[in-house]
Amino acid sequence: MVEFRRVIVHRSVQHNETLDRTFSALSDPTRRSILERLARGPATIGELAEPFGLTLNGVKKHVGILETVDLVITAKVGRARECRLGPTQLEDATGWIDAYRRAWERRLDRFGAYVEEPR
Amino acid sequence: MVEFRRVIVHRSVQHNETLDRTFSALSDPTRRSILERLARGPATIGELAEPFGLTLNGVKKHVGILETVDLVITAKVGRARECRLGPTQLEDATGWIDAYRRAWERRLDRFGAYVEEPR
Repeated sequence: MVEFRRVIVHRSVQHNETLDRTFSALSDPTRRSILERLARGPATIGELAEPFGLTLNGVKKHVGILETVDLVITAKVGRARECRLGPTQLEDATGWIDAYRRAWERRLDRFGAYVEEPR
Repeated sequence: MVEFRRVIVHRSVQHNETLDRTFSALSDPTRRSILERLARGPATIGELAEPFGLTLNGVKKHVGILETVDLVITAKVGRARECRLGPTQLEDATGWIDAYRRAWERRLDRFGAYVEEPR
């Protein structure tokens, strides 16, 4: 469990808030849909609003949340604000989940080892 | 983008609510800490309450949320309720994130191809 503990302690102390905000950002279906749309190319706030049936302010709010965790970056282009995928590849989120999965698998392994080689 | 679209459409339609609830469950630091604790072995509600400085009802509430997404399972053992890691290995969450990362990387690839081989 050393690896899991090390990773988790590290992340718990330093990245808790980032993890909170990242998982929270991903928990909304509209925000995930915006990311899926931007994975096909940049779009303005107005272009995002139409297909999702959202108001401009609704899109701005969701985009703002995605910006705080670097999932989206925006830039003013003429009178519009263009959105595109940000720099994060969700390293923190996948780091936590990977550590969790390793611990989960290790628990299964340990149970198997106990069954096969009781001491 | 075919692969990403296929995965996302599939997940958007069928697994949206599970994804919402899974990411939401992971967005709370106490719930992640409970999972980290259970990765080291089963614990009763009371044993989880102490180190986190939570009330029994506080733990029950968090554990209930983790139960709805199969991250934790509980069983009555005598007068206590024992919690352990549930069956999910977060397949839906990692599936979505992996598709996102592939799309993100593909956009970089495409940009690279465009720079190297302009048409």
